[in-house]
Amino acid sequence: MKEKIAIIGGGLSGSLLAICLAKRGAQVELFERRGDIRKGQADAGRSINLALSTRGIEALKRVGLAEQVLNDAIPMNGRMMHSVDGQLTYQAYGKEGQYINSVSRSLLNIKLLELADEFDNVKILFKQKCVDVDLNKNTAVLEDEHGVQTSITADIIFGSDGAFSAVRSEMQKTNRFTYSQTYENYGYKELEIVPGPDNSFQAEEHALHIWPRGEFMMIALPNPGGNFTCTLFLPYEGERSFDKLQTPQEIEAFFKQYFADAIPMMPNYVEDFMSNPTGSLATIRCNPWVYKKFALIGDAAHAVIPFYGQGMNCSFEDVKELDEIIEEHYPNWDNIFKKYQEARIKNANAIADLACKNFVEMRDLVGRPEFMRFKKIDNDLCAHYPEMYKSQYELVSFSKTSYKYAQDMGYKNEALIAHIMEHNLDTDIQNAAVIKPLIERFILN
Amino acid sequence: MKEKIAIIGGGLSGSLLAICLAKRGAQVELFERRGDIRKGQADAGRSINLALSTRGIEALKRVGLAEQVLNDAIPMNGRMMHSVDGQLTYQAYGKEGQYINSVSRSLLNIKLLELADEFDNVKILFKQKCVDVDLNKNTAVLEDEHGVQTSITADIIFGSDGAFSAVRSEMQKTNRFTYSQTYENYGYKELEIVPGPDNSFQAEEHALHIWPRGEFMMIALPNPGGNFTCTLFLPYEGERSFDKLQTPQEIEAFFKQYFADAIPMMPNYVEDFMSNPTGSLATIRCNPWVYKKFALIGDAAHAVIPFYGQGMNCSFEDVKELDEIIEEHYPNWDNIFKKYQEARIKNANAIADLACKNFVEMRDLVGRPEFMRFKKIDNDLCAHYPEMYKSQYELVSFSKTSYKYAQDMGYKNEALIAHIMEHNLDTDIQNAAVIKPLIERFILN
Repeated sequence: MKEKIAIIGGGLSGSLLAICLAKRGAQVELFERRGDIRKGQADAGRSINLALSTRGIEALKRVGLAEQVLNDAIPMNGRMMHSVDGQLTYQAYGKEGQYINSVSRSLLNIKLLELADEFDNVKILFKQKCVDVDLNKNTAVLEDEHGVQTSITADIIFGSDGAFSAVRSEMQKTNRFTYSQTYENYGYKELEIVPGPDNSFQAEEHALHIWPRGEFMMIALPNPGGNFTCTLFLPYEGERSFDKLQTPQEIEAFFKQYFADAIPMMPNYVEDFMSNPTGSLATIRCNPWVYKKFALIGDAAHAVIPFYGQGMNCSFEDVKELDEIIEEHYPNWDNIFKKYQEARIKNANAIADLACKNFVEMRDLVGRPEFMRFKKIDNDLCAHYPEMYKSQYELVSFSKTSYKYAQDMGYKNEALIAHIMEHNLDTDIQNAAVIKPLIERFILN
Repeated sequence: MKEKIAIIGGGLSGSLLAICLAKRGAQVELFERRGDIRKGQADAGRSINLALSTRGIEALKRVGLAEQVLNDAIPMNGRMMHSVDGQLTYQAYGKEGQYINSVSRSLLNIKLLELADEFDNVKILFKQKCVDVDLNKNTAVLEDEHGVQTSITADIIFGSDGAFSAVRSEMQKTNRFTYSQTYENYGYKELEIVPGPDNSFQAEEHALHIWPRGEFMMIALPNPGGNFTCTLFLPYEGERSFDKLQTPQEIEAFFKQYFADAIPMMPNYVEDFMSNPTGSLATIRCNPWVYKKFALIGDAAHAVIPFYGQGMNCSFEDVKELDEIIEEHYPNWDNIFKKYQEARIKNANAIADLACKNFVEMRDLVGRPEFMRFKKIDNDLCAHYPEMYKSQYELVSFSKTSYKYAQDMGYKNEALIAHIMEHNLDTDIQNAAVIKPLIERFILN
């Protein structure tokens, strides 16, 4: 591949894409708005850790980074729910050996940039903010920290510049560009559970912790340093909301009422709450993803809310599938772009839907007996009929089948489990004579 | 009212709003991008006639224009379907005396501008294109035909600048602005059925004509000059699509196959098809509609596709309800804006949904026997139980109840009619002992 390819945005998907294209011999220029994260110049306000699962791992394998990344990750085997009175309930994510991985966003980005930098045919430029693109002339205008603008041109230009993509902004002005940005009425605030003595974990290390409270929730993911990054998701307005938590007294009273068991592990929560920014939650969808020599990838094409832990995994899968399509169709870029968006848009829409659905599941349903019953049946079916039945969570997080397929199968699974619950067959799950015909009827039809 | 109020956009909703605010004493400045339509300076490419129904009429009554507008309108009492072999089928829109009105967009706009111009406290400026607004400073930048820019300021600024609103573009950049633009895979092309001898109508005058062809359709609305404005709705791509109609031969063959009965009335269809632009169809939704001293109204807030004939009616209802809210809450503009969007957003979303649903109904279902059966039952229920049962079409087009209510009732109606069809009660509709309990069960619960 001899093309000159510009990549706007050196975050996770942009830097992974740079590596894939560099391996094919392209002349890659990677432009990143922020400073060099390897020099500690990343800015604040981004989520600190992320859940890496099968799709993301598969993409990292493609560039030989999976093992190295997993070495620094913390496996999370299931959800640990904390009730208001501090009782713990555990739900496994899948079967033995199926777990998701808490990884540091910045460490992962550093590893990707380091690898990209090893290629002579990759040039990485930091503090270069894309302020304009000309979709008809294959150009982009980058502005440095002093306001100096440079116009660059390339044969192919990728917009991996995140949820507020400048490349997508220009595409939005073209005719028949379908676009939506949807904000939740919820904001989020990052807080911390600090390490115990000798950097020990003060709560179960190998779990994603959830404090489900119906209309709101807090979650916590473990970090290698023994601390947990907590995120409080709360409505902006209403009876229990960010609006009502303005003073230290209000914050303290709220936490004492709802997260009492976490307070001893969170010595700085009041100060953190007051000083940390409140983030917003958006789903962004668009169609098409490509225009002439431009293509969107990662969050620029599909920002999803974080409740299925799939934002990064979906972006990495974009890169992996694009690379596979290039393998097959190079040098026909028109065809590559066409196949790329055909392959990805429906799947990005599916995971966006699933993430919205999972928000309700996490903040509300996980704490309810009927849902626990549902999950128990779901897990039992997975365990006893592994060839015939896969849970939606398993399909999303531990398989390479498409998100769209996982979404479609989820509906079938729900119908089957509803039938089992209605006929009180919970204890008959191991009875293949009863259950196999039901799986055949509901799932394999 | 002493405020200085700027209205960006002098189309139907902007000019009606100017009149309402002028009557309250505001100092109104109305800025219109195009030239003065009263001097024949409107530009092409906009739909020529529109269907005015109850909501629109109610809004026009508020400023004393309803009678005058209806004098120039052509009542359409129902749909006339044309099958492929030229057979005609008629479906009434409602009961005796319930009809929609074909009105000329430009004539209506002229009447509104003329009335607005009668007020000393209204200033109308043409060829003033809004190129920027500052949401925090209450200013807008207008550019004239020579590229000269003027910055204006006002106490309150309305964006009635249509589907591609410049005001909304700025609001889209504010935090937590939910926004979507969705394009259909269909385009449209305007054509004409010419008048017969002595400006007579060559087809039934008092009907909206439809040539339903499943995946595409043509419609025609009568004009006072004896002609009909036809609109062909067709996919952009695919087997039968604009893509496949490039040459006069292809267009002719297509019309001969699908619209043979219309050809004798459309002497210029091939030339018109070749020279007229292909329009696109978008649904635009956003939330909020207000920001500080700015508010969106009409298509700027909610572009809908034209298949329920409610775009203009919805926009006029925006103005009417806003005016009622001003009546009650003036001079508390914060409250006025809050109540305004609370009242309107859910209804605009409902009619956007209904318009999408009606597209399928018009192009496909109206030609099918089971749908005709459905409509017959629907009409019979309306006729025999007028106090208990209202069709969705009646609620949307001939009532002042909210669009949201019409949408919700539509689901109930469908359940009732499905029950009647399932139990073959079609001929028992007049039997109150059978039907009244069903209406109570399905509709009035």
